[in-house]
Amino acid sequence: MSAGLVAALREVLGDRGLVADGDDLEPYLRDWTGTVVGTALAVARPATTDEVAEVVRLCAAEGVAVVPQGGHTGLNGGATPRHDGPSVVLSLTRMRRIRDVDPVSDTVTVEAGVVLADLQEAAQGVGRLFPVSLGSEGSATVGGIVSTNAGGTAVLRYGMTRDLVLGLEVVLPDGRVWHGLRALRKDNTGYDLTQLFVGAEGTLGVVTAAVLRLLPATPRRATALVALPDVGSAVALLGRLREHAAESLTTWELVGRQALDLVLAHVPGARDPFAQARPWYGLVELAGVDQGALDAQLEGALGAAVEEGLVADAVVATGSAQRAALWVLREGVSEAQRVEGPSVKHDVTLPITGLADAVAALAPRLDAVLPGVRLVTYGHVGDGNLHHNLTAPVGQEDALRAAAPELTAAVYDEVIARGGSISAEHGLGRTKVGAHQQRTSEVELDLMRAVKSAIDPAGLMNPGAVLPG
Amino acid sequence: MSAGLVAALREVLGDRGLVADGDDLEPYLRDWTGTVVGTALAVARPATTDEVAEVVRLCAAEGVAVVPQGGHTGLNGGATPRHDGPSVVLSLTRMRRIRDVDPVSDTVTVEAGVVLADLQEAAQGVGRLFPVSLGSEGSATVGGIVSTNAGGTAVLRYGMTRDLVLGLEVVLPDGRVWHGLRALRKDNTGYDLTQLFVGAEGTLGVVTAAVLRLLPATPRRATALVALPDVGSAVALLGRLREHAAESLTTWELVGRQALDLVLAHVPGARDPFAQARPWYGLVELAGVDQGALDAQLEGALGAAVEEGLVADAVVATGSAQRAALWVLREGVSEAQRVEGPSVKHDVTLPITGLADAVAALAPRLDAVLPGVRLVTYGHVGDGNLHHNLTAPVGQEDALRAAAPELTAAVYDEVIARGGSISAEHGLGRTKVGAHQQRTSEVELDLMRAVKSAIDPAGLMNPGAVLPG
Repeated sequence: MSAGLVAALREVLGDRGLVADGDDLEPYLRDWTGTVVGTALAVARPATTDEVAEVVRLCAAEGVAVVPQGGHTGLNGGATPRHDGPSVVLSLTRMRRIRDVDPVSDTVTVEAGVVLADLQEAAQGVGRLFPVSLGSEGSATVGGIVSTNAGGTAVLRYGMTRDLVLGLEVVLPDGRVWHGLRALRKDNTGYDLTQLFVGAEGTLGVVTAAVLRLLPATPRRATALVALPDVGSAVALLGRLREHAAESLTTWELVGRQALDLVLAHVPGARDPFAQARPWYGLVELAGVDQGALDAQLEGALGAAVEEGLVADAVVATGSAQRAALWVLREGVSEAQRVEGPSVKHDVTLPITGLADAVAALAPRLDAVLPGVRLVTYGHVGDGNLHHNLTAPVGQEDALRAAAPELTAAVYDEVIARGGSISAEHGLGRTKVGAHQQRTSEVELDLMRAVKSAIDPAGLMNPGAVLPG
Repeated sequence: MSAGLVAALREVLGDRGLVADGDDLEPYLRDWTGTVVGTALAVARPATTDEVAEVVRLCAAEGVAVVPQGGHTGLNGGATPRHDGPSVVLSLTRMRRIRDVDPVSDTVTVEAGVVLADLQEAAQGVGRLFPVSLGSEGSATVGGIVSTNAGGTAVLRYGMTRDLVLGLEVVLPDGRVWHGLRALRKDNTGYDLTQLFVGAEGTLGVVTAAVLRLLPATPRRATALVALPDVGSAVALLGRLREHAAESLTTWELVGRQALDLVLAHVPGARDPFAQARPWYGLVELAGVDQGALDAQLEGALGAAVEEGLVADAVVATGSAQRAALWVLREGVSEAQRVEGPSVKHDVTLPITGLADAVAALAPRLDAVLPGVRLVTYGHVGDGNLHHNLTAPVGQEDALRAAAPELTAAVYDEVIARGGSISAEHGLGRTKVGAHQQRTSEVELDLMRAVKSAIDPAGLMNPGAVLPG
């Protein structure tokens, strides 16, 4: 069967559009973290929507699963094929045409394989902003950020990818194409099918193109790093920033001392701008069109915060070099932790009101599981979204690996008990499906299963992602 | 059967919670426009989520349709029961508890029957803004604005109601309750069930409560009325406003001369601030925290627009009384047109790029159907959403009524041909279902039917709304 399918796919896609050789397949089968590895009959690399539709039809006819894949930068294995059961990986990276950029409607129509950085650049070229910004933007694709509802460092102001999607073109599990590429701000004609496919991780169909919103460019910035006594102060400062800066507030990121220490140790050129060590740091950025107004807003908010004792120390960037140096302290965390050794990652949200208490409760609970575990906490306070990534006590990497399931259960149970979510922005992929099933009500799982069966009755679209396969 | 059901409902709800008498029923059976009238066995008025669940279970057991109803201000009959087949109207207006207001998380948890104006006031009470603002806000309820994905005059800046809903509590068609009241900015754990219920007009379940986002208060305003030579200038001015004011731009409403004439004729105290009549008028409002900055932004944008010849004349409000006088010219249109006589209403969107051409194409097309028909156009340029409401030539009301189907078909066909939508913000309700079915692809209708059958297999939730009953 598989030889026949591969031959049929080659017929449709040509040699350039098909990868079926063992060595060439490998990069498509192993995820970015290197921990999730699957198998596939072949990788299909269609160049057009019609070719995608034909691939899906051929696979459906043979009962072979389709696993859509973009830049393959996901952290939960959602775009990596499973081990068991035949799959074809459907890589969208050849569909990288920017079909339309419209600075009057403030929309862009882009194919699934367009890289996020290229999209940002296209927006900038017409004096606009596409605001999704994240570490992997040089590889992540439109199809991927739409299918995982990606977040990043500007969600506070602009929302998730979901909030920026106006229309989609989707190849459905039966190979038909839903032409939903509407460039409309308002469209109340029935169920929001667009939002159903956003964040569905390719389990309901293959996103082949999207109409996305562009925003006014905000070329001026005011950036500060603040040293904070505790998470409660970070939350209170968020309020002050909102009061003084309203929507100018674009970024409000927290970095714990453990995280900063790793950056200072492993990222070349990283420098602590403060004389004294503090337990928490906040990176604040306002963006807009009027430098004077932004500076005044930032100064007003920080002044009020210092007076209230929320901020122990602060440094305001005086130019782009200093701004970049402050950003390194936040953006370097992930890489620095990778250099330090293996880690157990968590991407959770909580209601912002409960953030400080949750962080306080988490540390002793994790320490009881693995004494001395290093709780490297950082992330997006303005969204209630912190990454609690655990690094082993020095030299105890094996103990960390052994304790990982129990540590993760502790994080998730604490978060769920406080009204939070076990996946803020990374999705469920494959690796979080079990944890989600255990902690979700039967009513909610029934609704999810009903949606999946309604749209993909044969269960061939990325089986095992989002729901058990 | 019906007597048994009514008795069982009375048992659950008590006398206060049930209306079964003919005269008392009447207001629940006739829509706001007075043109859609249906029948019902009774009106259930539950006071709690448990009571709602019990009503839905009892109706499901008897195969009786449930028609959820809020403030009953909808314009397409979506909350008015049908003529044929037994229905119970489920009025949520007794569920009017504000369960929680949290200015730290910037969220509010409110029951379905809370009136929009009360919600706005609750937000204001903690120094925040709930930005949905529309003519019927004194009657419209949370359940209604969520179920219809209501728009209004601040969508340009804040999005539709959909963009403000974080979580929902929903009674499902089988009477089970989905507890999805999460107050999270980010939650990527599977399909977005919340957004599936938003805008579903009660056809997938009954929204009983919602967690909604609050925004920073923007107490300062800068408001202007501009006179414009054509719709193209209005679109171009939108661009200038965005460049100068970025997200401060909250409102950009267009009023055609015909609409203004009706307001001047019928709204007491309405006054044309300009010496010379022009074909189009724009109401512009910026909102923020710094009056000086807003004034400078507005002045900068208008200055640039005057220089380019986009604006023929402009008046900037110098105080709240003058601001209110300018708003009357926009907000008075609907009422003024009602006083003038019957009208045929349309609520459509287009890609903003194509707005001017569409308006230009529409006028002769409608005039060919009914010579002299008055095209009263106004609405939200920033969203591509204009209301084309047609008033009869003087004394020809009967001709208007006779030509109504053909006029509406002309508007819808023109809009669809230009990539637009036949319902921007009012939903499909009952009255637009036929027009939507005729102009929507089979693939899209299949997806909608699949969703409906998956969640409401018996088809008892508001049958005939959104999809044919």
